[in-house]
Amino acid sequence: MNTFGRHFRLTTFGESHGAYIGGVIDGCSAGLNISMEHVESMLLRRKSSGGVSTERMEEDMPHFISGILDGVTTGTPIAFLIPNKDKKSKDYDELKEVYRPSHADFTYQAKYVIRDHKGGGRSSARETVVRVVAGAIAMQLLQREGVEIIAYTSQLGRVGLEDGYIIDAHHCVSKVGCPVSSVDDEMYQALQDARVEGDTLGGVASVVVRGVPVGWGSPIYGKLDAKLADAMLGINACKGFEMGDGFGLSSMRGSEANDSFTSANGQVRMTTNHSGGVLGGISSGSPLTFRAAFKPIASIAKPQQTITQAGEPMELQIKGRHDGSVFPRVLPIIEAMTALVLVDEMLADRLSR
Amino acid sequence: MNTFGRHFRLTTFGESHGAYIGGVIDGCSAGLNISMEHVESMLLRRKSSGGVSTERMEEDMPHFISGILDGVTTGTPIAFLIPNKDKKSKDYDELKEVYRPSHADFTYQAKYVIRDHKGGGRSSARETVVRVVAGAIAMQLLQREGVEIIAYTSQLGRVGLEDGYIIDAHHCVSKVGCPVSSVDDEMYQALQDARVEGDTLGGVASVVVRGVPVGWGSPIYGKLDAKLADAMLGINACKGFEMGDGFGLSSMRGSEANDSFTSANGQVRMTTNHSGGVLGGISSGSPLTFRAAFKPIASIAKPQQTITQAGEPMELQIKGRHDGSVFPRVLPIIEAMTALVLVDEMLADRLSR
Amino acid sequence: MNTFGRHFRLTTFGESHGAYIGGVIDGCSAGLNISMEHVESMLLRRKSSGGVSTERMEEDMPHFISGILDGVTTGTPIAFLIPNKDKKSKDYDELKEVYRPSHADFTYQAKYVIRDHKGGGRSSARETVVRVVAGAIAMQLLQREGVEIIAYTSQLGRVGLEDGYIIDAHHCVSKVGCPVSSVDDEMYQALQDARVEGDTLGGVASVVVRGVPVGWGSPIYGKLDAKLADAMLGINACKGFEMGDGFGLSSMRGSEANDSFTSANGQVRMTTNHSGGVLGGISSGSPLTFRAAFKPIASIAKPQQTITQAGEPMELQIKGRHDGSVFPRVLPIIEAMTALVLVDEMLADRLSR
Amino acid sequence: MNTFGRHFRLTTFGESHGAYIGGVIDGCSAGLNISMEHVESMLLRRKSSGGVSTERMEEDMPHFISGILDGVTTGTPIAFLIPNKDKKSKDYDELKEVYRPSHADFTYQAKYVIRDHKGGGRSSARETVVRVVAGAIAMQLLQREGVEIIAYTSQLGRVGLEDGYIIDAHHCVSKVGCPVSSVDDEMYQALQDARVEGDTLGGVASVVVRGVPVGWGSPIYGKLDAKLADAMLGINACKGFEMGDGFGLSSMRGSEANDSFTSANGQVRMTTNHSGGVLGGISSGSPLTFRAAFKPIASIAKPQQTITQAGEPMELQIKGRHDGSVFPRVLPIIEAMTALVLVDEMLADRLSR
Repeated sequence: MNTFGRHFRLTTFGESHGAYIGGVIDGCSAGLNISMEHVESMLLRRKSSGGVSTERMEEDMPHFISGILDGVTTGTPIAFLIPNKDKKSKDYDELKEVYRPSHADFTYQAKYVIRDHKGGGRSSARETVVRVVAGAIAMQLLQREGVEIIAYTSQLGRVGLEDGYIIDAHHCVSKVGCPVSSVDDEMYQALQDARVEGDTLGGVASVVVRGVPVGWGSPIYGKLDAKLADAMLGINACKGFEMGDGFGLSSMRGSEANDSFTSANGQVRMTTNHSGGVLGGISSGSPLTFRAAFKPIASIAKPQQTITQAGEPMELQIKGRHDGSVFPRVLPIIEAMTALVLVDEMLADRLSR
Repeated sequence: MNTFGRHFRLTTFGESHGAYIGGVIDGCSAGLNISMEHVESMLLRRKSSGGVSTERMEEDMPHFISGILDGVTTGTPIAFLIPNKDKKSKDYDELKEVYRPSHADFTYQAKYVIRDHKGGGRSSARETVVRVVAGAIAMQLLQREGVEIIAYTSQLGRVGLEDGYIIDAHHCVSKVGCPVSSVDDEMYQALQDARVEGDTLGGVASVVVRGVPVGWGSPIYGKLDAKLADAMLGINACKGFEMGDGFGLSSMRGSEANDSFTSANGQVRMTTNHSGGVLGGISSGSPLTFRAAFKPIASIAKPQQTITQAGEPMELQIKGRHDGSVFPRVLPIIEAMTALVLVDEMLADRLSR
Repeated sequence: MNTFGRHFRLTTFGESHGAYIGGVIDGCSAGLNISMEHVESMLLRRKSSGGVSTERMEEDMPHFISGILDGVTTGTPIAFLIPNKDKKSKDYDELKEVYRPSHADFTYQAKYVIRDHKGGGRSSARETVVRVVAGAIAMQLLQREGVEIIAYTSQLGRVGLEDGYIIDAHHCVSKVGCPVSSVDDEMYQALQDARVEGDTLGGVASVVVRGVPVGWGSPIYGKLDAKLADAMLGINACKGFEMGDGFGLSSMRGSEANDSFTSANGQVRMTTNHSGGVLGGISSGSPLTFRAAFKPIASIAKPQQTITQAGEPMELQIKGRHDGSVFPRVLPIIEAMTALVLVDEMLADRLSR
Repeated sequence: MNTFGRHFRLTTFGESHGAYIGGVIDGCSAGLNISMEHVESMLLRRKSSGGVSTERMEEDMPHFISGILDGVTTGTPIAFLIPNKDKKSKDYDELKEVYRPSHADFTYQAKYVIRDHKGGGRSSARETVVRVVAGAIAMQLLQREGVEIIAYTSQLGRVGLEDGYIIDAHHCVSKVGCPVSSVDDEMYQALQDARVEGDTLGGVASVVVRGVPVGWGSPIYGKLDAKLADAMLGINACKGFEMGDGFGLSSMRGSEANDSFTSANGQVRMTTNHSGGVLGGISSGSPLTFRAAFKPIASIAKPQQTITQAGEPMELQIKGRHDGSVFPRVLPIIEAMTALVLVDEMLADRLSR
């Protein structure tokens, strides 16, 4: 399944070291005047950050080849390509017959009996560039409705923001994506420490979405929180999701966890937001708040024990440029996937009455 | 969206206080000899537990009305009905114009402009009976492949099993679903304490699935962990999900979190299972392990502040029979949803080569 | 696949001689005040006609069990059941091991290795009752938009209406569904002649849909004419479909077949309607016109050569009550399927801009 | 909807005069060794024929950019691009504000409020190149099962093959795709006559598929004939479809139309094949036979009356290179769409037992 979404559908294709990766968006409403600056700014955030990121620096700007006329969407499929310029396949030659620990090498090989080992092939995080492009377009449809999505780093390794902190606006300057600069510095230092030791760090992203009206999402098998969980766990290295107070709710009592209704100026409001802006799978008008946990990047410089495809034990030392953490580069990917979920629900809601 | 699954598709219908709730399974392979005893045993687990559950005791056994001939599936849609016998709609009369805190009353009303308030209508947990029936059938297809799914209570309120505990087999005797009886007792006591105070408790379920072969699940947007997250968050009151070590991975380093490959008797194995049996979205052959966090049941006996549909503030005291926690009754629901995810991937895998 | 539609989705279930047949509609907009009289009137048209129909006379009225509150749709799944009261399974006992010519007995047996032979099981035309109920609801949504669907008998056996005839309104009185009473009489006589000889007749239905606005349907793989073709061929015994002048267009020249645009009162119009109201898969504002060909009913009273399931040749004489033609009873089924296609496109169009 | 298929899914994109058109195939089984010669031979058949075709001669060979490793499919999405080299957009400049008769200009404009007029944009038959590429790959999967698909011209304008003719093998030499060379010559002459007069011809394609095993297709809403009808009507200019004897069945009696079963060497056979190889929506083991009717190409050289987008009447004379008929170039497109339907059913059948 390489298609995401039901109404606004993104289909992606491409291997890490092929000529191109790309995507097709089917179902984008006609008449949207696309801001390429916005697409570019999100791609830039994915690519670099405070000197931390060292991944290959290919030109990520997409070539749009259909669905847009004079900058405006026409209702036909929006296809785009991103060339893979700066690939160093040689770095991967010695990985051809090896199962890297906690990578998908083994499972792809077992499922398909064949796999493209170069750069991780299809399982590479390179695919997420495509998500960011599509997410940036989805976001522009959402902005017309007043929706704003912000993801930030709330934990990196063992360094974290204090409980209850919620960001108020996109921050321009940070090293690893944390909006409190002292904590951001501390996180950055932890990351440097890990890298020096040839190691990597996991972390947690927090997300807040403001401006979602009451009524998006569906009961039963289309719950908004379930769709967000699916989207987050679909990001490479994501291993956990919680909506609102999430796991914290499991040790609360009902009288603590319930969000009371109140009324102000004819508007229904909640005095608290433990549930993260979703009730019964449908948005409540409170900000959506959720968190996603990411494991440390599996490609570490430290030597590791593993086996070859033939089953022989070996010591592996992974070369090439690799990040010390998915943060902060995963943040625009998270925002993109959130936008893809929400634009789908925005469209679906047009059918409910 | 009231349909779950892609190949083995469950569509459910029915309100809590209508004549029936029910479901239709489309895509169940022909030739399965269905064990009604197994269906019944899962329904019994959903209905009662160690004297804890007090919900209405309607006869939950489904009437199968199509798709089965002499106990064997025919490949046509399997439809079944479960009568709602023991409903006390009067208990709900006074809730007609009220928005109960942390319930879906408000969001349904806002989305559809109309709602069936009786027993919570469609948003009631009553709908999960249907999931258990379908899940029990899915499980029988999985058992032919050697797959076994076990969910248990690992935390209730502030009482929890120690880290790293993994159940080895279904336990027959427990009060709240925890396999360590001293902890189960302690949990039960905590639940009684909460109920005395008119309150409810949240908790965490742990799940282990043994026997899943290498290769189930799909890369990119069909990742097995993402499908499980979607299924769990789709259960009423579930607000968090983590695969393998989940949120714990976010404070680990790569060298700690990576699962090393080894080889034994020509079989690829992993020495640890931090990733919970999934690599790149595809099952690795290690047991699937994941956890789901549940908030406390929102219907508490304690008085609460809320508003009426007209926006008037009021003090609400919810009457009627209500559970003190979703545990242990949620456990067979979790197993059922897990089975629905896995049977779909079992079928999908037939198409991959 | 027992689900029809993408936004307004009908899932049907049930065998001919089971306790019930029924359906679930998911995606019906909330707030529709359903006219049960309209549902009933369509079911009556399916059931009987001018003394021609002799099928079993079970009470076809559906029991709605969810999704409707005080006669108004709530946005949750609309499920309904229709009991199979008047079944005479004994009529089918001797067919258990026989492959009836041009029936689905053989193919079901080959595909599923098991089949419910009673009354044709799932392959019986009994399933179409469910389509009529769902279609009647779809039609009520369409009526709010001013859409009217009329199907009529334009050919029965070798008797037909003259070319170019298009009905202007639903006719109340006819024997076999033809609006020109002299032709209707002639068709009826042909049908009686066939029945006397233990034989059956095929025929052609013509359909006209007025009031469809410009813009329904989608280019490429969602063409409105393709969706209608799919719907018609999905009706038992339908073996042909043509849009507008259809097969007749194949012997025309472009200069004859093209529909010229003209403009009147600021409205774009076409001077002819050879294309049947669809251009590029999208409705043009002209009436939709199409035709569907039906083979003669395969169950004939005349003795036929066939084989048993064991491969033994035998002479078969089918007993029981059977119609001499699918006409006129197929007409409300055709209208229902047309309505299901159109309501889906009506909803889809809300997403296009 | 720009995606075709459920298991083997083709998504297409691209406008006639954009940089590329292309497609993404998701769900193609891993391990298929793709013959590019076969892809090329089908594309050649689409491009030219006996001197008849005059369309632009761009190099149609696809660039495969993902999903194939050393010529073998890997189970990841197969994406391919075809450059639009030989476009003459100037030919279309004067069509920018015109609604061409029986073209999709008007309906696209009405639906999306914006349209790419150059070369017909998305509605151009250029999109069918993509279908041929994907169909050629589907066909290679089908060939492994012994399935062979042949489409041929059975009628062009008023010239036709005699009733009952069925082709036995692909013919190499013909002018307009008719396997009987005297008829082919006559058709070719009729086409030349029409072109001289600035006109175009419609026609009918016949298709025979041999080697489909018993059991492909699904009852109710997934009938094999309905899927084929959907696929055929989805081809530009197709306005009619009939399975087996199709419309001819409507004037037969049951005793004439029924196909009798017989048994030979333990195999079930039918003595006739009026039903075209499908019973109850499922393949019967007899050859699939069906026909598709095509209207004359709407772009004629003769002057026509029409209106501008502003509603002004005008006389239109279409310039540029245009074919006199969709035949014979539509034949490989028909075969491709047939292959896409059948490969989907081949995969689906793996799930039925």
